[in-house]
Amino acid sequence: MAVYTDVGFEELESLLASYDIGTPLAFKGIAEGVENSNFYLQTDRGAFILTLYEKRVSPGDLPFYLGLMEHLARRGIVCPLPVPTRDGALSTILNRRPCAIVTFLNGLSVRRPSVRHCAGAGAALARLHLAGEGFAITRANALGPEGWKPLAEACDSHADGVEDGLGALIREQLAAVTAAWPRLPGGVIHADLFPDNVLFMREEVSGVIDFYFACNDMFAYDLAVTLNSWCFEMDGSYNLTKGMAMLQAYRAVRPLSDEEIAALPVLMRGASLRFLLTRLFDLVNHDPMALVSPKDPREYSKKLRFHMKVKSAREYGVD
Amino acid sequence: MAVYTDVGFEELESLLASYDIGTPLAFKGIAEGVENSNFYLQTDRGAFILTLYEKRVSPGDLPFYLGLMEHLARRGIVCPLPVPTRDGALSTILNRRPCAIVTFLNGLSVRRPSVRHCAGAGAALARLHLAGEGFAITRANALGPEGWKPLAEACDSHADGVEDGLGALIREQLAAVTAAWPRLPGGVIHADLFPDNVLFMREEVSGVIDFYFACNDMFAYDLAVTLNSWCFEMDGSYNLTKGMAMLQAYRAVRPLSDEEIAALPVLMRGASLRFLLTRLFDLVNHDPMALVSPKDPREYSKKLRFHMKVKSAREYGVD
Repeated sequence: MAVYTDVGFEELESLLASYDIGTPLAFKGIAEGVENSNFYLQTDRGAFILTLYEKRVSPGDLPFYLGLMEHLARRGIVCPLPVPTRDGALSTILNRRPCAIVTFLNGLSVRRPSVRHCAGAGAALARLHLAGEGFAITRANALGPEGWKPLAEACDSHADGVEDGLGALIREQLAAVTAAWPRLPGGVIHADLFPDNVLFMREEVSGVIDFYFACNDMFAYDLAVTLNSWCFEMDGSYNLTKGMAMLQAYRAVRPLSDEEIAALPVLMRGASLRFLLTRLFDLVNHDPMALVSPKDPREYSKKLRFHMKVKSAREYGVD
Repeated sequence: MAVYTDVGFEELESLLASYDIGTPLAFKGIAEGVENSNFYLQTDRGAFILTLYEKRVSPGDLPFYLGLMEHLARRGIVCPLPVPTRDGALSTILNRRPCAIVTFLNGLSVRRPSVRHCAGAGAALARLHLAGEGFAITRANALGPEGWKPLAEACDSHADGVEDGLGALIREQLAAVTAAWPRLPGGVIHADLFPDNVLFMREEVSGVIDFYFACNDMFAYDLAVTLNSWCFEMDGSYNLTKGMAMLQAYRAVRPLSDEEIAALPVLMRGASLRFLLTRLFDLVNHDPMALVSPKDPREYSKKLRFHMKVKSAREYGVD
């Protein structure tokens, strides 16, 4: 949550000369997003977000992310819509960084989702899975099982310092989950649909944001990531009512096959491993001068241990 | 530039129950302000800024800051207007911190002010000095000569590590400036009217923000702070044309007496010492885990050395 690259009025003016979006009325750096610099921009024609992509987003992936948002928006998903430059480009360069302007979405994210919010997120995820169909560009999931291995190795010697027995847990689960990893229907997934990335107006979903982990992978894995990040309480307990609401709402839009349902427990373990490993990696490689504090990996080792005891998808609320 | 305290949707909802400003449509942490947490809040009735006051702002000073903005706004100064709660209070409590909601101002700050911008800032400062008259609460300038001494002592052993000879420069100038410090007409001053705190629409001033250093002190000292922060170029050179424009625009609204003009050189040295000392203090006490990077104190030792050679106010552009 920070602005890494400052943008002055003069840079903004010269940037806006390449766009047909009116005269700036307000411009503020906002504390949002993974490792990009984001600015709220209001002009006489509307509200926008200017994003400067910092090192974590590869410029080569921008056509995928920006093209995907355009594709989804055209198919009725409320997501930020990239605004093209006068030359028709979806991104340009500012302060030596790739940047893009997208439409600003109204709505607020919730920190403690209600059952109704979980249902809304489930339905939004399913609509997103259907709407991604036909998008021409593909992007492999860099944080799938193949990507976990190097992360696990890089963190191995530090894991037990973070939590007793964490090294052994990771080694064991990495082998078990990778061996049991299923092959299921897939397409474009969001891959990071945490509560901060879904906007609500009152209790209805008003938009989905932050597509910078989107990729091609199994739909049911995306559902596992989402269940994992919405349906646990602060104390680490799984809220079955929320899980049921999310699963039901998802299935009402995109039915799940028996194979997808049967795979949920291993997908939940995989989703936990993925966030456990990236958080652990970010923690052990944390630069104390960095502007963001690392998130606690132990939230996900706790979830992983919960899923290891689960025998069937019924325990997540599949009826 | 950071958000220190996170505010969830649920906290926002319960906070807004105490206000009569409508339903939230958007809410984003913004990267602005000294050491407070600021949020852009849009409701169906307008745009606002929610500020949570962190440790640097003393809760006892809030009636001064918020009352001053109300007083100035009533007298035609475009500044954030505090929005009262349903009970008529200008501040309340959120997440154990004092907080206030003020109106959002359109406009953009400039990083490289033009001559025209400098004139605009000068006129705005003079209008602010006149409009402050009659404000009932007073607040001593904690960063006047009395406040410099303890800062200088706290930094003394570190100064030469930052810049060769800085310790001696500070000791010598602290004594000289304090001894020559004048007594001139005063009232409420902004005390921090840097370019980031003045908003422009095209080339006209559209608002003045960030009153959290405002206090009672000499008007001409405030003018020195403003000249010092607007009229030097990036390379450290003083831009006489900008100085002339600012001084002329100020004097067209509030004439300067001969005593005020004669005192400008020592006031400029004092204004330089003030920012040199606070920046040096923040640098040597910098917590590497902090969310903001310290500013370079050497910008102000350089300005101080420039002012030490100035013989008369003519050199700043007084005609």
